Amino acid sequence: MNAYELIKKKRDGGELDREEIRWLIRGYVDRAVPDYQMAAFLMAVFFRGMSGREGVDLTMAMVHSGQVVDLSGIRGFKVDKHSTGGVGDTATLVLAPLVASCGGVVAKMTGRELGHTGGTVDKLESIPGLTTELTGERFVELTNRIGVCLISQTTGLAPADKLIYALRNATATVDSIPLIASSIMSKKIAAGADGIVLDVKTGAGAFMRNYEDSLELAQTMVKIGEGAGKRMVALITGMDQPLGRAVGNALEVREAVETLSGHGPEDLTGLVLELGSEMLLLCGRAESREQAGEMLQESLDRKRGLAKLGELIRAQGGDPKIISNPDLLPRPKAVIPVESPSSGFVASLDAQAVGMCSKLLGAGRLVKEASLDPSVGIVLHKKIGDRVEQGEPLADFYTDNDPQKLTAARDRFVEAYEFSPEPVGKPRLLYARVDKNRVAELERG
Amino acid sequence: MNAYELIKKKRDGGELDREEIRWLIRGYVDRAVPDYQMAAFLMAVFFRGMSGREGVDLTMAMVHSGQVVDLSGIRGFKVDKHSTGGVGDTATLVLAPLVASCGGVVAKMTGRELGHTGGTVDKLESIPGLTTELTGERFVELTNRIGVCLISQTTGLAPADKLIYALRNATATVDSIPLIASSIMSKKIAAGADGIVLDVKTGAGAFMRNYEDSLELAQTMVKIGEGAGKRMVALITGMDQPLGRAVGNALEVREAVETLSGHGPEDLTGLVLELGSEMLLLCGRAESREQAGEMLQESLDRKRGLAKLGELIRAQGGDPKIISNPDLLPRPKAVIPVESPSSGFVASLDAQAVGMCSKLLGAGRLVKEASLDPSVGIVLHKKIGDRVEQGEPLADFYTDNDPQKLTAARDRFVEAYEFSPEPVGKPRLLYARVDKNRVAELERG
Repeated sequence: MNAYELIKKKRDGGELDREEIRWLIRGYVDRAVPDYQMAAFLMAVFFRGMSGREGVDLTMAMVHSGQVVDLSGIRGFKVDKHSTGGVGDTATLVLAPLVASCGGVVAKMTGRELGHTGGTVDKLESIPGLTTELTGERFVELTNRIGVCLISQTTGLAPADKLIYALRNATATVDSIPLIASSIMSKKIAAGADGIVLDVKTGAGAFMRNYEDSLELAQTMVKIGEGAGKRMVALITGMDQPLGRAVGNALEVREAVETLSGHGPEDLTGLVLELGSEMLLLCGRAESREQAGEMLQESLDRKRGLAKLGELIRAQGGDPKIISNPDLLPRPKAVIPVESPSSGFVASLDAQAVGMCSKLLGAGRLVKEASLDPSVGIVLHKKIGDRVEQGEPLADFYTDNDPQKLTAARDRFVEAYEFSPEPVGKPRLLYARVDKNRVAELERG
Repeated sequence: MNAYELIKKKRDGGELDREEIRWLIRGYVDRAVPDYQMAAFLMAVFFRGMSGREGVDLTMAMVHSGQVVDLSGIRGFKVDKHSTGGVGDTATLVLAPLVASCGGVVAKMTGRELGHTGGTVDKLESIPGLTTELTGERFVELTNRIGVCLISQTTGLAPADKLIYALRNATATVDSIPLIASSIMSKKIAAGADGIVLDVKTGAGAFMRNYEDSLELAQTMVKIGEGAGKRMVALITGMDQPLGRAVGNALEVREAVETLSGHGPEDLTGLVLELGSEMLLLCGRAESREQAGEMLQESLDRKRGLAKLGELIRAQGGDPKIISNPDLLPRPKAVIPVESPSSGFVASLDAQAVGMCSKLLGAGRLVKEASLDPSVGIVLHKKIGDRVEQGEPLADFYTDNDPQKLTAARDRFVEAYEFSPEPVGKPRLLYARVDKNRVAELERG
């Protein structure tokens, strides 16, 4: 076998067999296959795609390039959730304790920010004292004790994916559905859960901007997961604007606390109830969507999910008092309103631009090595459909008051909005539900 | 400007402007653009192609990555000829002196073997004493004196092409028409001639197996050359089987001598007259095809071309007596006939396989560093259309008598033939003539 022949086969529209895919991935990790051959292969995949079977084989080759987490020490059906990435997406912080409070077992590995989207690890680490760097033994022990634990993705997981992702990032081969699907699924499968609920974002703020691509990605990932013996469901959900109102690390933790207290933003709460229902159904804690919804709502009403978040924070070394007093979270030097330049109805709100503004304020890393400021970010007051008068605040900037950052972020932020003189409807939140058997359109939600 | 954006632009079907192409090629030569980004770009070009304007810009960027030969010291219109590569293609060895004997000026850089095809430099160096490694001054001086000189391509010519070619060879991006065209034309343009006649091979023994691809390649190269201010003509000619009867270095020199003496193989002689006529027309030595043909025929009849070959050999340090006594050329240990396994008409004769057999006998380099034996090779007795009886010789192997080489070559050689019980026509030699204005189909020739 040689890399040249495999590149040529894919280039000419052929299908690689399992042994060929394994050989290529192993060779790449071992540095026997050089970057330039893998780059040419990835570009050929960009143009030719991959069959479902190839996708499964590629994913499993990446899974077996490193360690596979053994969650067998954790009792029960372990359910994981993954989002393809959005702006202000606080869902994991809410879902993990909420589902655990309903009896689900959530032993989840999670990541740092990627591109314009935030990372749950970064958000969690804004809680004073909390660590996501736990040993495997402690991970198992805590999950068995309280039903939920969130740790940083270990570096040993799917190293082939890490290498290939870096190469894709440098060679314009990121936005290929089989490559995205196998990258996500290799890490999810290596992370050891029994079932996975995928939140595949669609719209202007998502990696996949149109519905057809999002659907194809969802179907590809469900197929790969089922092929690897996992129970899989995907929801396709809207990311036309940031989810919730908070964008920034401590700000999103505060929003999670509010949501678990039953008074979070409507879109975030709605999404959490949908994804949470799927998680409870998947792990067998609920028998129907209605039952699952009721369980989750009751947990919100009785603040059981909030209490579970407190348990999680304490177990992972953080200060649980933040759930009753979020002012204990890191606070910025200043809160500065950003005024609307126009009157009218908000017609669109560019989520990627908002994510970038939050980064400019210091909430994310502009270069890989930079540290981030957990206290800064943005709280949106006006979202799509809202009426606004000129001079009224569109948002508050939580900031270290550096005038340069502030000016850069403000200019970009105002441009993220478009206004209409006519009333504008709320963007659609729910699009479709995909499992191994079918695609069902969902009510607009 | 950055490589990622340029890869993405091409990947998405965009057209790179001149500055972008220059930046990319310069960056690659300077190692600022790594191999893996260039590999991804080349694969994107494979799928997306290039516009005519992009092809010219890419070619010129490669030309200007190194030295450009200055032939201004040579009087007259310098005409070059290039073949896209065939097996047993002795045309340059015949054409250069023949055209010079009719008053054309042929100051030609030439190369070593590539893939299954032989190189003119290797063939010339089988002449005792002859060197193709001359200084620029000597090249100019000799061409002015005798009208023809053949030197090795200098290493400083189009270094970007050399780097890119090696990368294409490792990443399955060789067979892309704009990349082939720009690679050939960058070297031809850098070599400094005023006009170039291209011999674009088509058929089973050529890099381009089908006519449409060959035509596209011819048109692309003509467009690039004209864009660079060169006068251009391309002939598309058949390479269904080896050209002439000899395959091997000294054997092809001997065949060139025979052809210049007026009794060469019919197909080689026919091709030389066609290409030679185009060269004489291009440089203004003839005013019509008829006149050019008559000039060349007269030169053959009077052995003026042969005499010119003698002058060239003497000027370049070789023994000119080989033109009257070809037995002075290197001779092998043994000449061994290869008998036909069947009776019938030769229906096909795989030129690539014949080229490979000649290599196996030692006439070419199986690995880059190997030396070659100028004396060995193959003389074909039966070609497509010929009647053959079982046990009759298909060819003679000129060999060092190494039994291992002999067995390997013989097994492969016999498989290169297919036989038919029915009579088979001669393969077509001439397909089309392409200049900047039009494509004209040629008589079958």
